[in-house]
Amino acid sequence: MIRLDELVDLLGGEVLGDGSVGVGRVATLDQAGEGDLSFLANPKYLSQVRTSRASAVIVGKGARDALTDRPRIVADDPYLYFARVARYFNPPAQVQGGVHLLAAVSCSVPSSVAIEAGAVVEEGAVLGEGVHVGAGAYVGRGVRVGANTRIAPRVTIYADCVIGEDCIIHAGAVIGSDGFGFARERTGAWVKIPQVGRVLIGNDVEIGANTTIDRGALDDTVIGDGVKIDNQIQIGHNVRIGDYTAIAGCVGIAGSTRIGERCMIGGQAGIIGHLSIADDVVISAGTLVTKSIRQSGVYTANLPVQAHGDWVKNFAHLRHLDALVDRIRALEQRLEERE
Amino acid sequence: MIRLDELVDLLGGEVLGDGSVGVGRVATLDQAGEGDLSFLANPKYLSQVRTSRASAVIVGKGARDALTDRPRIVADDPYLYFARVARYFNPPAQVQGGVHLLAAVSCSVPSSVAIEAGAVVEEGAVLGEGVHVGAGAYVGRGVRVGANTRIAPRVTIYADCVIGEDCIIHAGAVIGSDGFGFARERTGAWVKIPQVGRVLIGNDVEIGANTTIDRGALDDTVIGDGVKIDNQIQIGHNVRIGDYTAIAGCVGIAGSTRIGERCMIGGQAGIIGHLSIADDVVISAGTLVTKSIRQSGVYTANLPVQAHGDWVKNFAHLRHLDALVDRIRALEQRLEERE
Amino acid sequence: MIRLDELVDLLGGEVLGDGSVGVGRVATLDQAGEGDLSFLANPKYLSQVRTSRASAVIVGKGARDALTDRPRIVADDPYLYFARVARYFNPPAQVQGGVHLLAAVSCSVPSSVAIEAGAVVEEGAVLGEGVHVGAGAYVGRGVRVGANTRIAPRVTIYADCVIGEDCIIHAGAVIGSDGFGFARERTGAWVKIPQVGRVLIGNDVEIGANTTIDRGALDDTVIGDGVKIDNQIQIGHNVRIGDYTAIAGCVGIAGSTRIGERCMIGGQAGIIGHLSIADDVVISAGTLVTKSIRQSGVYTANLPVQAHGDWVKNFAHLRHLDALVDRIRALEQRLEERE
Repeated sequence: MIRLDELVDLLGGEVLGDGSVGVGRVATLDQAGEGDLSFLANPKYLSQVRTSRASAVIVGKGARDALTDRPRIVADDPYLYFARVARYFNPPAQVQGGVHLLAAVSCSVPSSVAIEAGAVVEEGAVLGEGVHVGAGAYVGRGVRVGANTRIAPRVTIYADCVIGEDCIIHAGAVIGSDGFGFARERTGAWVKIPQVGRVLIGNDVEIGANTTIDRGALDDTVIGDGVKIDNQIQIGHNVRIGDYTAIAGCVGIAGSTRIGERCMIGGQAGIIGHLSIADDVVISAGTLVTKSIRQSGVYTANLPVQAHGDWVKNFAHLRHLDALVDRIRALEQRLEERE
Repeated sequence: MIRLDELVDLLGGEVLGDGSVGVGRVATLDQAGEGDLSFLANPKYLSQVRTSRASAVIVGKGARDALTDRPRIVADDPYLYFARVARYFNPPAQVQGGVHLLAAVSCSVPSSVAIEAGAVVEEGAVLGEGVHVGAGAYVGRGVRVGANTRIAPRVTIYADCVIGEDCIIHAGAVIGSDGFGFARERTGAWVKIPQVGRVLIGNDVEIGANTTIDRGALDDTVIGDGVKIDNQIQIGHNVRIGDYTAIAGCVGIAGSTRIGERCMIGGQAGIIGHLSIADDVVISAGTLVTKSIRQSGVYTANLPVQAHGDWVKNFAHLRHLDALVDRIRALEQRLEERE
Repeated sequence: MIRLDELVDLLGGEVLGDGSVGVGRVATLDQAGEGDLSFLANPKYLSQVRTSRASAVIVGKGARDALTDRPRIVADDPYLYFARVARYFNPPAQVQGGVHLLAAVSCSVPSSVAIEAGAVVEEGAVLGEGVHVGAGAYVGRGVRVGANTRIAPRVTIYADCVIGEDCIIHAGAVIGSDGFGFARERTGAWVKIPQVGRVLIGNDVEIGANTTIDRGALDDTVIGDGVKIDNQIQIGHNVRIGDYTAIAGCVGIAGSTRIGERCMIGGQAGIIGHLSIADDVVISAGTLVTKSIRQSGVYTANLPVQAHGDWVKNFAHLRHLDALVDRIRALEQRLEERE
């Protein structure tokens, strides 16, 4: 438990109401109980605060005086403040250095490094202080991993890739598999092009479960600092992603595409290869990007869901849109001629 | 081999023709041979039965008298009956209790539990009778797994998740990885929100290969009883899925969405976050759902495939639909004025 | 380093300019330096050759005389030639036979086979000469793997599957998991249909990271020779894929669909179940195929991306296309009546 006034000393913000109230957990408004601190990110949920059993609430400046009966912390960005409190209550687990008897480690590692059962670390790998290699993870030959990076169970990092500091790589992620590069013979048979580039990942990057990032063909695949990549994402060879870009689940990014900084890419979106996406671009869920985007802004291409019968009726016309436009043009001409 | 009349004693249904005929295997109509039992789920394939070499056929009541020359079992639902016969001929492999020398198990487990080579089971995990932990699977600290659940090789279950009885979790699936939750600083940098909820999975759930289910942020992610989840699916934090819902491959479900009971979600469909989907909803393949669905029924949003040239011609107009509607309106007004 | 004239002796083609120039690496035009051999696949990048620091360039016959100041190799297909040179410079790593102490191998294997730490090979598996089983990979009971096939770390191959020679299977791939087959009871509960078929994979097949290929229900799932499958792909039970077909990342192919030879399927495309796709079909990225395709050619169904505001304005009309067509028809009738 920590008192609200102590929390404000640590994290900033202003206490209104009884600052001696203690909180020990963060919780959503509807789940919160005695001893919980909740937050109001959007004033439209004000009524939920009234019925919430939270001991205290984080509010924005706009809601400063709306809740005079409840101890509260006023912050510029309540959600960001909530994130900081949540981290205070739930710090990352301390890494206990040591190599499990059932791990196979072929390089020397600092004593602060933990390597769990079934993990394999190959020759020439270089692990920074405090790195955690989860059970059954694979760290290939010559891989470098920065300090305090946490590699979850069953992650695979192919040879020669470079991971920054303070990264989190979730279970099943694969870093540095071969890019999809083939030349075609006249017969239709494919000749594999050796993929000799690496994957270079910056600091403070999070990579989701079962996400795959291919190594470059000749040059490298590069992920900037602070990039956040959700689960089940595919990133092709030679892709470059700028700092602080966030990518939601199931996105596919094809080879050699460059994505700017601070972009946000919605779930199941796709970006074809060899494109360039500017900084601060937002791509809506499910949107397939087939052309470069030169200006920041929100971009969308997805369909309205309909009851199946309506969809059949409406979408049949999509096959004949061009003929439809011809009919409109013909109508215009006929009217024109008669006027 | 079992005689048709014995099968009917076990599983119900009615034999017509020679009940002493023996069958030892199920097979499709075109692959079946001597000793095989096949099925006719749809009367339109009746002619296939005529040419099939199956020794006997399961048919519905409608086809009861259409195949008088062939031994047959009449059942209310031939496909369901076929499923039961297939299970009779192919029961799940018996689990041989025992812990492999190359497994790392840090808790006590019942003697009926099998833990294969390379598997890791952490402290405080609780495994029910007859649980099978496949080679190289990871069961985190405090995880609970119900009786007779089979965990395939290379599955990862993060700490504190709860799996019911009689579940099957296929290779590479990841249960309980962190949800994708971040608050954004003014600089664009992301602050990770600790994901402290769990994943709770009911009984008789099947989870496909390389599927990922994130743990809740504050509350839990919940999968109901009898839910069937195919391969390569992503389920975000705090999602709730009702009993008996079935989800086909490559679907993505974003955070906090609630899906009702007995829904069927087609392959590559997506559902964005914070939505509510009613019971008995069917979502067609490839459909991105961006609004809540309040009523049972079939919902669709996907595009007709065309030869590329036709597609270019027709779909160019989609960028100008609004202008097109304006032209129609203008035509209507001009005619109106002249009438 | 190898001289251009020696390279041409090995791989064919014709040297123009100084054949004694030595090259030791392949590189892209913009990254190449002293000692690098680059290539010009498309004459429109001719100006890039002029500024490139590559010691020599592979060109097509059309560009034969356009670069008289630079040593060059003239080839029918410069990209294919580049692929062959890249393979010459980067041959696959030699497999060092031997079984790691921390591997669990329950069958006998040739001395040329390498099995890495944490790998598990079950009883009855048959591995050909020179097979490499990566760290933590799982090879199930009765699996057969052809000579010189390389299985990356953390691959899972379920019992009884058959893999050809010279294949590459990348990390996290799952071969032979259960297909998604259930019959439904009146209550909505699902009865699992045992999946007793296998996966049969031809020679020279590459399978990408975290791709999943389900075993057949009754018959087998079959992947032809020379098929190239990228990352994060889902292939359902009983699918058949013809020789030399290439499939880009994130594609989903539902059960029982048959795909011809030499097809190319773009990223994030989907094909629903029980369809038949002819030989030499190209499917564009993001296209969902819902009907069989009987003729070779390019097929597409995806949407133009728009700035979000334009999308809102244009796509709202998709819900009312049918009404719009009615309005056009009404206009035509009104004009008809008046003419």
